[in-house]
Amino acid sequence: MIANSPAKSHTTSTRILSSLFIALFSFSLFDPFSSVSAVNESLTYLWPLPWEFTSGNETLSVDPGLSLAIGGYGGNSDILRAAFDRYRGIIFKHSNGVYLFDRLRGRRLVYDISKLSIVVNSDSEDLQLGVDESYTLYVAKKDGQSIVGGATIEANTVYGALRGLETFSQLCTFDYGTKSVQVYQAPWHIQDKPSFAYRGLLLDTSRHYLPVDVIKQIIDSMSYAKLNVLHWHVIDEQSFPLEVPTYPNLWKGAYTKWERYTIEDAADIVSFAKARGIHVMAEVDVPGHAESWGNGYPDIWPSPSCREPLDVSKNFTFDVISGLLSDMKKIFPFELFHLGGDEVNTDCWNSTPHVKQWLQDHNLTTKEAYRYFVLRAQDIAISLNWTPVNWEETFNTFAENLNPRTVVHNWLGPGVCPKAVARGFRCIFSNQGVWYLDHLDVPWEGFYNAEPLEGIDNASEQKLVLGGEVCMWGETADTSNVQQTIWPRAAAAAERLWSKKEAISTGNITSTALPRLEYFRCLLTQRGVQAAPVTNKYARYPPTGPGSCYQQ
Amino acid sequence: MIANSPAKSHTTSTRILSSLFIALFSFSLFDPFSSVSAVNESLTYLWPLPWEFTSGNETLSVDPGLSLAIGGYGGNSDILRAAFDRYRGIIFKHSNGVYLFDRLRGRRLVYDISKLSIVVNSDSEDLQLGVDESYTLYVAKKDGQSIVGGATIEANTVYGALRGLETFSQLCTFDYGTKSVQVYQAPWHIQDKPSFAYRGLLLDTSRHYLPVDVIKQIIDSMSYAKLNVLHWHVIDEQSFPLEVPTYPNLWKGAYTKWERYTIEDAADIVSFAKARGIHVMAEVDVPGHAESWGNGYPDIWPSPSCREPLDVSKNFTFDVISGLLSDMKKIFPFELFHLGGDEVNTDCWNSTPHVKQWLQDHNLTTKEAYRYFVLRAQDIAISLNWTPVNWEETFNTFAENLNPRTVVHNWLGPGVCPKAVARGFRCIFSNQGVWYLDHLDVPWEGFYNAEPLEGIDNASEQKLVLGGEVCMWGETADTSNVQQTIWPRAAAAAERLWSKKEAISTGNITSTALPRLEYFRCLLTQRGVQAAPVTNKYARYPPTGPGSCYQQ
Repeated sequence: MIANSPAKSHTTSTRILSSLFIALFSFSLFDPFSSVSAVNESLTYLWPLPWEFTSGNETLSVDPGLSLAIGGYGGNSDILRAAFDRYRGIIFKHSNGVYLFDRLRGRRLVYDISKLSIVVNSDSEDLQLGVDESYTLYVAKKDGQSIVGGATIEANTVYGALRGLETFSQLCTFDYGTKSVQVYQAPWHIQDKPSFAYRGLLLDTSRHYLPVDVIKQIIDSMSYAKLNVLHWHVIDEQSFPLEVPTYPNLWKGAYTKWERYTIEDAADIVSFAKARGIHVMAEVDVPGHAESWGNGYPDIWPSPSCREPLDVSKNFTFDVISGLLSDMKKIFPFELFHLGGDEVNTDCWNSTPHVKQWLQDHNLTTKEAYRYFVLRAQDIAISLNWTPVNWEETFNTFAENLNPRTVVHNWLGPGVCPKAVARGFRCIFSNQGVWYLDHLDVPWEGFYNAEPLEGIDNASEQKLVLGGEVCMWGETADTSNVQQTIWPRAAAAAERLWSKKEAISTGNITSTALPRLEYFRCLLTQRGVQAAPVTNKYARYPPTGPGSCYQQ
Repeated sequence: MIANSPAKSHTTSTRILSSLFIALFSFSLFDPFSSVSAVNESLTYLWPLPWEFTSGNETLSVDPGLSLAIGGYGGNSDILRAAFDRYRGIIFKHSNGVYLFDRLRGRRLVYDISKLSIVVNSDSEDLQLGVDESYTLYVAKKDGQSIVGGATIEANTVYGALRGLETFSQLCTFDYGTKSVQVYQAPWHIQDKPSFAYRGLLLDTSRHYLPVDVIKQIIDSMSYAKLNVLHWHVIDEQSFPLEVPTYPNLWKGAYTKWERYTIEDAADIVSFAKARGIHVMAEVDVPGHAESWGNGYPDIWPSPSCREPLDVSKNFTFDVISGLLSDMKKIFPFELFHLGGDEVNTDCWNSTPHVKQWLQDHNLTTKEAYRYFVLRAQDIAISLNWTPVNWEETFNTFAENLNPRTVVHNWLGPGVCPKAVARGFRCIFSNQGVWYLDHLDVPWEGFYNAEPLEGIDNASEQKLVLGGEVCMWGETADTSNVQQTIWPRAAAAAERLWSKKEAISTGNITSTALPRLEYFRCLLTQRGVQAAPVTNKYARYPPTGPGSCYQQ
């Protein structure tokens, strides 16, 4: 029996949420003396926080018939028009224009904002690493005081415009009293850009197959947090779900014939992601984590009892990798391609006679053969004009031999990116102690406080840190719970990767960030995303009792 | 480290899944000797199981440009056309007609089924209790042997046609080898209808607010299992999220000003549900479970320290109920309306001076006053031409006084419906021991084996059992986990409520039903629904390790 009324539980709450509730109640529809001034001085409920912004104290209404005016060389983009339609659906989901009761019928509705102008300077839709995602957003009343009236997004690329659309959608709030969409604290002037070019989420479709619709749901949700790289860990030892036309038996390694991705499915996912400004980086993890390859081609196993690492001694192994990568090159245009290289236990190479013989013939230790394998796979990727990404073991073991174009992907612990960039490599930060989503005991603060540049003071070395990535390994995450394991903690990392370090690293994050993250979590749920409570003891745990989304 | 290959784990599995795997592997794309004959003799992967069906041994291909031919008085229905478009999206999500590799390019594609004919005999779209949901579905090759070639659905109402569309979509399987949609085991001839007119799911939006988009996701998923009543437990003691124009302060009882439903939202939900053949039965639970009402109108509380049951002594209380129900009558056309009446602890009425005085003046015990309250609320509902539904406490306490139109809603335990129908009342079965979804320790078998007609032998009494309902109480279920708490167990109840009792009550359900339910769970995930593993120790628990959806 929960006897507290909502009002009572608000006032007796011991949680430090005062800032949020100043915001909540200062907007109260039923308080004729309400004012937005408290919010002005309080928090900004945008996630991730924009780099530079100013706001005011006006409330503007937004026309449910909001029109799009486009300009610039890139204004005619289909991606932009489709995004505008998506965001209209998000912003106006309550405003269907049907008023069933007299109270609101017949009112003359005049809106402050009836048009969104978007100017895109470049007509290139090329989506590559480091593409310009900056934008400027103005939202102001059309009057003599504002230079620019209405709502305007200016960006150099369509992808910057997409980021601006997301921010605009977060400024738009449905007001239940007037039943209209309003922008509070106008005029807004926002100048925004990401801190890091690479803001990733790893999805693992080998431990559990994720249907295409589910991957699309996740891509949609990534765009809400301005994440921009889907690292698709498509294959691992448990299953090989992807079609490879050149080696058509490979996907016999799928769990079942229904848990598969056709090449067209993969292309569909890439296209869906591009429309949201999201790169798809595929991973083919060799020579370990590849047992499932042998279900279709058993010759790629050293022996039936030694199924991974893949057989280093056969040209066939590299023929398959080459065919696979050539096929994937037709699907994945992103310049980075992940070759894995982690957790390679070479013991059984030594106990397989023909491999042992090959090692002796080539005068290689198993460790050297591991290096040989990784470098030969890198050569294949590079010959296809890909930039290889490898998990940090390759760097830790033979940094001096790695191709200098290699991007080192940290995961084992802290301190790796400083070493990698000191040697001139680029680096992606995914320290498992703070950015592995399957670590359910890492709270949102752990994700939020992680810093990809930690230990790197030199500005030119800092530039070599491409960014970071949160990893959703799939051993215990399937369709039923993957979204609630990703969110809201991935959003904590997303703000770290987007926003200005100084703005989000000062003060007590329990009062500066937590209420904003709780607000963003509720925004995700309103958009149909199964984001879990922010402060439960373990990630993805159910709420412990009845309550408001904004308190859980 | 999970060392098993998929193949290995299949063969070493101790789970009794042989029937399923006969089905899986007999279809193998890579086995030139594969045959569908094993499946013919095995299970039928339709959920819920149709009443009567015959199948054959042909495989038919379905044209991704499938067209709709409509006939009958009801063929021109907008509901039907929209449903056809939805199901085309579901059936052909992989068949985008883009072949990126030569292997499939330039093939001349001839399909066996290029048209779906739907004949609807009635043009009435009236959706009331007991509406005819029967349909006939034929899928056969167009040749001399079949009287009807192609695919044809015949139904008396558009709602029967919707059920037939769902079944047709479950017959259509994407074949990853030919990259086309196929119907196996054709020709199919299915004659189907529900066992019970009322097949419900309760959603509780008071303990946790569920956004409109989430409610729509749930409604969509209900239609896949042929459930047909959304029992919307919209208000409870914790929060009052619904707008009531006549008493506009009531939704001050919402958790926050953002966790609310406008009247237009409610109408939108009703319309969305109707398009899927789903009734929405709203509940206003009085006089208990109503504390949140007093946040807007404190006079409805007996006193600040006695907040429920609502004040039985004031006409104001019944004025509010009357206004609320009158407003809701404009939104909810379903003939049933739920008035709650459960778990009423009247102790504090006696300790509130003005209520105690009123009880004395009217010579009523608190128990009699509870009856008075329920009956007066019933009178209001009946005056609005609603059929009242009450939780079983009202029947258990004063059956002799209940309006004979009352529908008794069982929940406390078994044996209530037999008593209710013996007295001539209609009944809905929701025995909490087997059909409460928040009871995480009740496995799928518990839901599956429940029988609404248990203990009722007389045919005329059996007719008084409208059906049953699974209840998703929201104390620990919010947007993040509500779908995985509902599914797949709600589907077990859905088959119980739809299919022929004799067909699903014989044999060992571990071999006859479990593989089919696992298949249906995976179908839900492919449609983007977060359905949990079927056989985990507790409902909604994550998978315990890597594996196929079809094994978890």
